[in-house]
Amino acid sequence: MTSQPFSGIATFGRRPYQPSPSRLDSDGKPIDVAILGIPFDGSVSYRSGTRLGPRAIREQSLLLWGYNHAQGVNPFDALSIVDAGDLDAVPVDIRQTHALVTEAAAAWRKTGAIVLGLGGEHSITLPLLRAAAAAEGEPLAVVHVDAHGDTWNEEYPGHPYSHGTPFVRAFDEKLISPAAYFQIGIRGPTYGPEDYEDARRLGARIITADDVAERGITEVIAEVRLAIGSRPLYLSFDIDAVDPAFAPGTGTPEVAGLTSREALQLVRGLAGLKIVGADVVEVSPPYDTSGITAILAANLAYEMLCLIARRPTGSFREIGYHGAGVSR
Amino acid sequence: MTSQPFSGIATFGRRPYQPSPSRLDSDGKPIDVAILGIPFDGSVSYRSGTRLGPRAIREQSLLLWGYNHAQGVNPFDALSIVDAGDLDAVPVDIRQTHALVTEAAAAWRKTGAIVLGLGGEHSITLPLLRAAAAAEGEPLAVVHVDAHGDTWNEEYPGHPYSHGTPFVRAFDEKLISPAAYFQIGIRGPTYGPEDYEDARRLGARIITADDVAERGITEVIAEVRLAIGSRPLYLSFDIDAVDPAFAPGTGTPEVAGLTSREALQLVRGLAGLKIVGADVVEVSPPYDTSGITAILAANLAYEMLCLIARRPTGSFREIGYHGAGVSR
Amino acid sequence: MTSQPFSGIATFGRRPYQPSPSRLDSDGKPIDVAILGIPFDGSVSYRSGTRLGPRAIREQSLLLWGYNHAQGVNPFDALSIVDAGDLDAVPVDIRQTHALVTEAAAAWRKTGAIVLGLGGEHSITLPLLRAAAAAEGEPLAVVHVDAHGDTWNEEYPGHPYSHGTPFVRAFDEKLISPAAYFQIGIRGPTYGPEDYEDARRLGARIITADDVAERGITEVIAEVRLAIGSRPLYLSFDIDAVDPAFAPGTGTPEVAGLTSREALQLVRGLAGLKIVGADVVEVSPPYDTSGITAILAANLAYEMLCLIARRPTGSFREIGYHGAGVSR
Amino acid sequence: MTSQPFSGIATFGRRPYQPSPSRLDSDGKPIDVAILGIPFDGSVSYRSGTRLGPRAIREQSLLLWGYNHAQGVNPFDALSIVDAGDLDAVPVDIRQTHALVTEAAAAWRKTGAIVLGLGGEHSITLPLLRAAAAAEGEPLAVVHVDAHGDTWNEEYPGHPYSHGTPFVRAFDEKLISPAAYFQIGIRGPTYGPEDYEDARRLGARIITADDVAERGITEVIAEVRLAIGSRPLYLSFDIDAVDPAFAPGTGTPEVAGLTSREALQLVRGLAGLKIVGADVVEVSPPYDTSGITAILAANLAYEMLCLIARRPTGSFREIGYHGAGVSR
Amino acid sequence: MTSQPFSGIATFGRRPYQPSPSRLDSDGKPIDVAILGIPFDGSVSYRSGTRLGPRAIREQSLLLWGYNHAQGVNPFDALSIVDAGDLDAVPVDIRQTHALVTEAAAAWRKTGAIVLGLGGEHSITLPLLRAAAAAEGEPLAVVHVDAHGDTWNEEYPGHPYSHGTPFVRAFDEKLISPAAYFQIGIRGPTYGPEDYEDARRLGARIITADDVAERGITEVIAEVRLAIGSRPLYLSFDIDAVDPAFAPGTGTPEVAGLTSREALQLVRGLAGLKIVGADVVEVSPPYDTSGITAILAANLAYEMLCLIARRPTGSFREIGYHGAGVSR
Amino acid sequence: MTSQPFSGIATFGRRPYQPSPSRLDSDGKPIDVAILGIPFDGSVSYRSGTRLGPRAIREQSLLLWGYNHAQGVNPFDALSIVDAGDLDAVPVDIRQTHALVTEAAAAWRKTGAIVLGLGGEHSITLPLLRAAAAAEGEPLAVVHVDAHGDTWNEEYPGHPYSHGTPFVRAFDEKLISPAAYFQIGIRGPTYGPEDYEDARRLGARIITADDVAERGITEVIAEVRLAIGSRPLYLSFDIDAVDPAFAPGTGTPEVAGLTSREALQLVRGLAGLKIVGADVVEVSPPYDTSGITAILAANLAYEMLCLIARRPTGSFREIGYHGAGVSR
Repeated sequence: MTSQPFSGIATFGRRPYQPSPSRLDSDGKPIDVAILGIPFDGSVSYRSGTRLGPRAIREQSLLLWGYNHAQGVNPFDALSIVDAGDLDAVPVDIRQTHALVTEAAAAWRKTGAIVLGLGGEHSITLPLLRAAAAAEGEPLAVVHVDAHGDTWNEEYPGHPYSHGTPFVRAFDEKLISPAAYFQIGIRGPTYGPEDYEDARRLGARIITADDVAERGITEVIAEVRLAIGSRPLYLSFDIDAVDPAFAPGTGTPEVAGLTSREALQLVRGLAGLKIVGADVVEVSPPYDTSGITAILAANLAYEMLCLIARRPTGSFREIGYHGAGVSR
Repeated sequence: MTSQPFSGIATFGRRPYQPSPSRLDSDGKPIDVAILGIPFDGSVSYRSGTRLGPRAIREQSLLLWGYNHAQGVNPFDALSIVDAGDLDAVPVDIRQTHALVTEAAAAWRKTGAIVLGLGGEHSITLPLLRAAAAAEGEPLAVVHVDAHGDTWNEEYPGHPYSHGTPFVRAFDEKLISPAAYFQIGIRGPTYGPEDYEDARRLGARIITADDVAERGITEVIAEVRLAIGSRPLYLSFDIDAVDPAFAPGTGTPEVAGLTSREALQLVRGLAGLKIVGADVVEVSPPYDTSGITAILAANLAYEMLCLIARRPTGSFREIGYHGAGVSR
Repeated sequence: MTSQPFSGIATFGRRPYQPSPSRLDSDGKPIDVAILGIPFDGSVSYRSGTRLGPRAIREQSLLLWGYNHAQGVNPFDALSIVDAGDLDAVPVDIRQTHALVTEAAAAWRKTGAIVLGLGGEHSITLPLLRAAAAAEGEPLAVVHVDAHGDTWNEEYPGHPYSHGTPFVRAFDEKLISPAAYFQIGIRGPTYGPEDYEDARRLGARIITADDVAERGITEVIAEVRLAIGSRPLYLSFDIDAVDPAFAPGTGTPEVAGLTSREALQLVRGLAGLKIVGADVVEVSPPYDTSGITAILAANLAYEMLCLIARRPTGSFREIGYHGAGVSR
Repeated sequence: MTSQPFSGIATFGRRPYQPSPSRLDSDGKPIDVAILGIPFDGSVSYRSGTRLGPRAIREQSLLLWGYNHAQGVNPFDALSIVDAGDLDAVPVDIRQTHALVTEAAAAWRKTGAIVLGLGGEHSITLPLLRAAAAAEGEPLAVVHVDAHGDTWNEEYPGHPYSHGTPFVRAFDEKLISPAAYFQIGIRGPTYGPEDYEDARRLGARIITADDVAERGITEVIAEVRLAIGSRPLYLSFDIDAVDPAFAPGTGTPEVAGLTSREALQLVRGLAGLKIVGADVVEVSPPYDTSGITAILAANLAYEMLCLIARRPTGSFREIGYHGAGVSR
Repeated sequence: MTSQPFSGIATFGRRPYQPSPSRLDSDGKPIDVAILGIPFDGSVSYRSGTRLGPRAIREQSLLLWGYNHAQGVNPFDALSIVDAGDLDAVPVDIRQTHALVTEAAAAWRKTGAIVLGLGGEHSITLPLLRAAAAAEGEPLAVVHVDAHGDTWNEEYPGHPYSHGTPFVRAFDEKLISPAAYFQIGIRGPTYGPEDYEDARRLGARIITADDVAERGITEVIAEVRLAIGSRPLYLSFDIDAVDPAFAPGTGTPEVAGLTSREALQLVRGLAGLKIVGADVVEVSPPYDTSGITAILAANLAYEMLCLIARRPTGSFREIGYHGAGVSR
Repeated sequence: MTSQPFSGIATFGRRPYQPSPSRLDSDGKPIDVAILGIPFDGSVSYRSGTRLGPRAIREQSLLLWGYNHAQGVNPFDALSIVDAGDLDAVPVDIRQTHALVTEAAAAWRKTGAIVLGLGGEHSITLPLLRAAAAAEGEPLAVVHVDAHGDTWNEEYPGHPYSHGTPFVRAFDEKLISPAAYFQIGIRGPTYGPEDYEDARRLGARIITADDVAERGITEVIAEVRLAIGSRPLYLSFDIDAVDPAFAPGTGTPEVAGLTSREALQLVRGLAGLKIVGADVVEVSPPYDTSGITAILAANLAYEMLCLIARRPTGSFREIGYHGAGVSR
């Protein structure tokens, strides 16, 4: 990037706009990552507004100059990345919206590109998981960073799909490997003790925000890496995993969350794993008065791009990652 | 009201909270008006947030001391008014939400009360019209104050119900009398010239914001009153009819709208007509940084209560209204 | 002023800071006007915050370049004006605060200076009136621009002093001439019809916001000027007289108010009258998200300074004012 | 709670509204806790606005789903809790307001209920302490979490009561046991070194925010528990104890404060002590642009409810609490 | 446009992004208009922030559905319009920035396209005028809508170029025809009476905001049209011409300005004149808390596009415009 | 200070306003520190607005009651401090602005006073360094706390001076001792790995934000103190060194920064070193919605005043500092 952040029409990281799936970019290089905005907030249970998240994240992504000192890579050099623009989400129809997401993500996967989703609310992880699991041909390991388990059976009686249920539905559809599903950052009041139990029965390994603080992020990362191993990994990051001080612009803020430093370290700590899909969700610009939530989300997406740049290719190998925040 | 506006849990105008339909209030008086909040923004086409409208309007309604000098009435004395609270809108299901609205409104109508709806988005006028027309047993005269005609056939292809279509659907269902349907405050770009034509074909008399400014609100009122006569009247006020300077807190602001003074005069000008239902919709608190939109909406709802206090009872009679802004 | 508005410590209009009453300024010229900040919001009935009004008005006053084309005068050239800083208001003691105001204003009056008060809440007009009436030795004509009559007997039972009662108390103390007391801009719901009647019994000539709109500001000005004639005049401007669109930053906003243009014209229309004191009150910075209320208040104060520059001296004479907005 | 947080009129945690003291709730169960809003900011020394705190906390309390995983209890199931609404604070009269608070709190105590106060400014802790100490018949242990000692003798000369003096007055009135008074979170500039000395002379054990960071919250909790033992305990939480990053919406923010995690842990760490009264104060909505301060305050109040649910009954016994953040 | 406003990467009115000047669009049609963002605020004299104006205007332009009922045209159908993106303005070098603007605008003019500039601050009108006058080969008629004359000789001593001087410099460079230069909306304090005189000496016809209110916009338009006749016309619209109520998001707000309705009517009133260049400037997003200023600016730019669609082609002819706000 | 923070015209810490350099204050005491505001944001690369920083910091400095418990000193008692007001920065001319800064700072240094600069953007550190190094007659040790190295050669091609280059230019001018230059808090993406290398080649010791978190601030301080020893020290604090949660009001926020506690400890940890100049820069009020960034900046400036009060005088000696946050 050479323009200053105040200038220009914002695509993510000033990557080329490529709305239709394609194998090659305009330079003839295979496209490695398609960044897909999903402006949907149709099922949120408190403050709406995340539909404007993708645009806000793109605007703040202009601050991302390229080289990541912690990960030792410039993803914009190492990868061919395109901004696939926004899907035309249908506010009144969550199933139709999800179908559009699955379709678009599957089409991009078919070209060989990994899809990085920008939400929008968390329900959109479900169709992204569908496309990713289908492409891999197996249930995925999932690292799900969030204040909330999102594993209620139904938030609205009779309605299986909403922003509090995507991971239950994903288990219903066998998209997630029960042996490798982590919920990290969980906290706050719930209906009852059974909420954690239900999640655990699905297979969830719950690492609460308190656990992160007490054990330290490095130990948490080690546990996650060990469990996931060479499995194909989907990384879903709900911005409300982070404390509202660092991420006020979200719909259902939950106090006493991760710090932004822990959040970055957690993502960096997954380097070398076989990332096959990822998302950053639940950024709500109307409540993000100084833009700091969108800046954080843009940085998280950028760290994910670095993970993708550093993922193992060909056969799996552990590629020299020895701790959080350490460059290779 | 005796408490100051900074104090207390906010029901509309400090009216008693009465969530279940009832013929009599706690003093044994027949309930005249039930104020019903409908916190739904599931189909809006731009900035979401109107689901928080009812709560914000209630909070600002604590400024309404009671006596209306322009209309010469204190509706809190003249009427038994209850706050029926909010319906549990279902964000993912507009039809279910509409069904809940119709059901609640019909139940209140059955007790003899008029329903005053607080939005929420404009789609909720449709189920309110259903209940009101059913109770009256005939299509209603409708004064629809808005920046937008809301008479598109479908905003989202394949989806008949959304915040841009309630009045087309109401015509489909024969809830509106084509001879007495006014759209007032219309302005802004649309798809094409056919948008106005389509509305006119339904029967709409379109009075644009420019028309109001050029003809004067008094003349507009006279035309409306003449056309409506003794018909049962439903009054639907989308806050975006008013200019964004006066009502910034809304989802799809449209410049060059009515002034707040014209808005109040317009409502006052309907005094003496046979009001059978009303609503104020599309207040979006996240964009209402100083609360002035909710204050305006609370005042409009209050002026509507005064209209109800002054509506003809028994047989119709013109009750001494001789112009906008004149007390009886 | 030569510095740009972004630069420097803000006194009103970059006038010298002169906290202790003095006959002469640092150039040895008699001080004509002392601008006195009164950061008090101890009795307000809804949203607090006006205690920060004086500082906000000063900051925005740096936009006032000097020459008033409408009034044909540069008050900073024509008058010696000082910024007397803020009184140390005592939040818990309205009587003590009022005593401090009276004392300071009387001391300035004794030096020959007119006091222009910057609020703070409206109760502070009472002690300013005390000082001004005492200095004149007679009850004053008062032009009171406001959404609210502020002529309740008691807002808080048992407490005669608060921001809703200053003018009743002023009548009690015979500070106002009943023959020359105007309330302009009045509107909104009150307890009952008796509120206007009570004010009229005191002598108030009520000109509602609707009256202003219907009659036109020019006609209103003519009526006011005729009634006041050569009486010493106190001008009290509550910013909530102006519509919340133009003045959102206030504690008890009332819809359908004056436009900013009408407000400026009204003040300008008093040129040639014998101004002996003035204030601008009820600016609440926490609700003034873009600063436009403070900018308006600064302009109103500046227009008042122009009035003072153009006031008759020696014996009264009508000095060539022929209508609103016309320069001499 | 079954409604979503966007829906409904907000009482604290959707508890029933019960404005007059009563022994039994509508289900005939003894009321355990009365939540009392005190919308008063009449003596604050910087930014006003806390009068709107109770309403904002209630609104955000709708996020509190019930079950507390850290404390292992659902206070809404374990206790009968009512929302007693707001007292009609009198802005101009702090003594009268305090008298109303004492009277209401005493009346609730007489029914057997514990009072949880929602401020409003910190001065209101004094009358709450009066009622609690009177009910207990002895001076109370007090855990006072705050950035400021609030133990100045007089903030405004000649005025003993204000938001910086409640604890000095409480010692004057022998409401606090000098052997069991903790100030936690203290920091920032003061008049001089004597400020801390004065507090210590009263009996205060000052644990600064720096102390908390250096010693760790667990060690602090242990010290507090040891000193308090079986004494009746009042817990007063000024939200400005927490760093402004986590709690920007307050009147006198002080940098380098507690984290929200430390705040929650501190409250949880008091489980098993004999809570007899509590408050959360100094939330100022006008400065809480994204609502995160009110959300934190609602959570703190909720954690306090859990403490009450877990308090020893009959004779004192340590009920299985073995460390901060550990469920029983 | 078919996507809803919440969706997609924002170019102006969803026009294709075409950063390099080109004669034909991607459909092979000659490009009629190039919309050029100029994110520069390097010389502003009060609140900075207008550098973010172009991006904000583009985002809100997604509300512009296409058909203009007042002008009777859909400019997106009638014209080939491209979004040329933003120039890489150089904050520290106003001359270099201006050179870049002139170069880009001249290049677009050479392709046959008219340039519509989106500011950024008002100084950028100078280089746009340079390109337009050079292309026309003659001094231009200029309608300059603004609160400020912007005809100071030097705002910063020794620096001829800044946001308060573009029109003086344009006269120096003989870019404006003195017989056809209008300043409309002027108001507020200035250094002295000579400010207006200086502007008049250059040839300016000053129509103050008060003049507009008194004479009516229709009469003003008639005067402007008569004076301009068939001259090539440049239209420069500083958003601060409009009252801060309607346009709070600007750097030097001036009270008592045009209404948004007058602003739209004024632009519409120029239909049929030979527009050869235009701009909308001084939108400052940091102060535009609800986005209404950017929405107004987007509408003004859109109305200008309609003017361009309706400009005379070939020889000049008056094309059926008979008054403000009347469709052809 | 005796007035409450809500009252009065704001100079820093209520110190006397002394715009022209002078050896003695009005009490005849030698002036120790001149606080100089530099309202300049002419070269910033993203969000502008820091020109309003000095005024905002002054306003929030009224919270600084005087005595610093952590440092054991009241700088307002220990030192004669004046507020030198703001320089008249010239937005369009960074060189001229810098020359004005150097001139003013040098003049103050000549009187014996140390200059504490309040930005404004970071480029203004260069002229402050010029004056300080010239006064000392040698290159300075520099502790540069920042998210960004600000050691790019040119941010805007061909322009050596901007907010990203001051320290490179300072090395060019031999103002900094390469043996004692620390960058603390560095983080975020840059152009490439060479950015750190370039800084290190100049002599920078880079201590990233991650380093601070991992090593602990105490160890960092020890390293810094050891390297600096008795050298004259300049301390430059860019507020964006601190995490956006604690300091949202800045132009180029970078996530995962220092906590406010670490920031205060870092400054306090320099006690006893020979401070010869200091600044706090990059506070941007338009993005500081609750004022917490300005409050933090005011506290940092205040801690710096305490450092100055505790600096060695006569020959260098280590004055009893034994660790971060410990009072002497």
